[in-house]
Amino acid sequence: MSELLYEGKAKQMWSTEDENVLRVVYMDQATALNGKKKDVIKGKGHVNNQISSLIFEYLIKNDIPTHFIKKISENEELVKKVKIFPLEIVTRNVAAGHFSTRYGVEEGKKFNKPVEEMYFKSDELDDPFINESQALALEIATKEDLNRIWDLSRKVNALLTDLFKQAGMKLVDFKLEFGTLEDGTLVLADEFSPDNCRLWDLEDNRHLDKDVYRRDIGDLTPVYEEVLNRLKKVLNK
Amino acid sequence: MSELLYEGKAKQMWSTEDENVLRVVYMDQATALNGKKKDVIKGKGHVNNQISSLIFEYLIKNDIPTHFIKKISENEELVKKVKIFPLEIVTRNVAAGHFSTRYGVEEGKKFNKPVEEMYFKSDELDDPFINESQALALEIATKEDLNRIWDLSRKVNALLTDLFKQAGMKLVDFKLEFGTLEDGTLVLADEFSPDNCRLWDLEDNRHLDKDVYRRDIGDLTPVYEEVLNRLKKVLNK
Repeated sequence: MSELLYEGKAKQMWSTEDENVLRVVYMDQATALNGKKKDVIKGKGHVNNQISSLIFEYLIKNDIPTHFIKKISENEELVKKVKIFPLEIVTRNVAAGHFSTRYGVEEGKKFNKPVEEMYFKSDELDDPFINESQALALEIATKEDLNRIWDLSRKVNALLTDLFKQAGMKLVDFKLEFGTLEDGTLVLADEFSPDNCRLWDLEDNRHLDKDVYRRDIGDLTPVYEEVLNRLKKVLNK
Repeated sequence: MSELLYEGKAKQMWSTEDENVLRVVYMDQATALNGKKKDVIKGKGHVNNQISSLIFEYLIKNDIPTHFIKKISENEELVKKVKIFPLEIVTRNVAAGHFSTRYGVEEGKKFNKPVEEMYFKSDELDDPFINESQALALEIATKEDLNRIWDLSRKVNALLTDLFKQAGMKLVDFKLEFGTLEDGTLVLADEFSPDNCRLWDLEDNRHLDKDVYRRDIGDLTPVYEEVLNRLKKVLNK
């Protein structure tokens, strides 16, 4: 019997007959401003599942260890069970969003070297910004875990910056999550979709990500579908 | 002619006849909550000047390069002119204050390894928390500067943890600032007083620092005088 183990902002995690395998259901839901803004968005679960599956397959083909097993329906996939690190791992190639307002830097400024940030996932503490020394003191991860996490994040950044460029998009910033499998292997987990990255059109810097929703620029699903179609074309899918 | 170059929360900086030397005046003033709480506190400038002079002399004797030249009156000292890095360098040996509320950690928890934090000094941005990768991207300091700053901070922590322990106090956390002299030498600048560190009595954990003022526990000057007298005794002054 399938049991709901976790419900997040846009996904549900269900148990399966195999205790080390979970079923992810992508929902037609978007939230922003830490849940203060929330809407049903028809078609979003379907398109995010497709985008994330394509990206994870591409990363796996390029030797990134992940939790992803396979897509099993339009809005469902199977993943390996992981013990997640309560950290949001953020990489920024270009200044935007929170970074710009927090540090007074104009949106669009490209960094010489990517900016690397961590946030401590905690609803009650409101996901505070955290540095390595603090994460070690709070025993959220070991130094070895963090080295491995940043090594994988940098590889993901190189691979996806290149992939999105081929698809006519600039990978501005993105959030990753990591966890460990039953056997201790550290893997990339969660999803990769326009919900947790910023993509700007290479030609006109048009937003092709959740900022369309956050900033009320237009309908989200057609934009996400454009991202999906561009990726499919580059990946011959 | 002496000219007022800068007025901070509790200090003024004046020019002198030597363009590379400044006169610091410690004021009888305390602020907290980012300036929302502000009071005149009789005797504070005097006692802070004495404490900071003793500490800087002690650090210089132990080979820490600093901006300090000498105390010239009850509330004044001479310092070398520095170009300051707009960074607050915070070291925490024990959880307290902001750290405890931000990360949900009980005040008084000792860390296995000191926690190291940086804040970007900017009134208009409200001194945001910043990590090394961000400081480099914003070109606030170079990697070499930051390595040197943290190397000196760790030495200061070891020296002062020991000194305060001899004086019956626990050095809970402290804030340092660094800058460069005309010739490029990186030095410790600013002051070291109970205004920018937390000191707890070794026996009963009584607050011997600005938390007495921040938290309205009692009169500040007698507490600071106790810190001064304990230090004088240990240092045979």
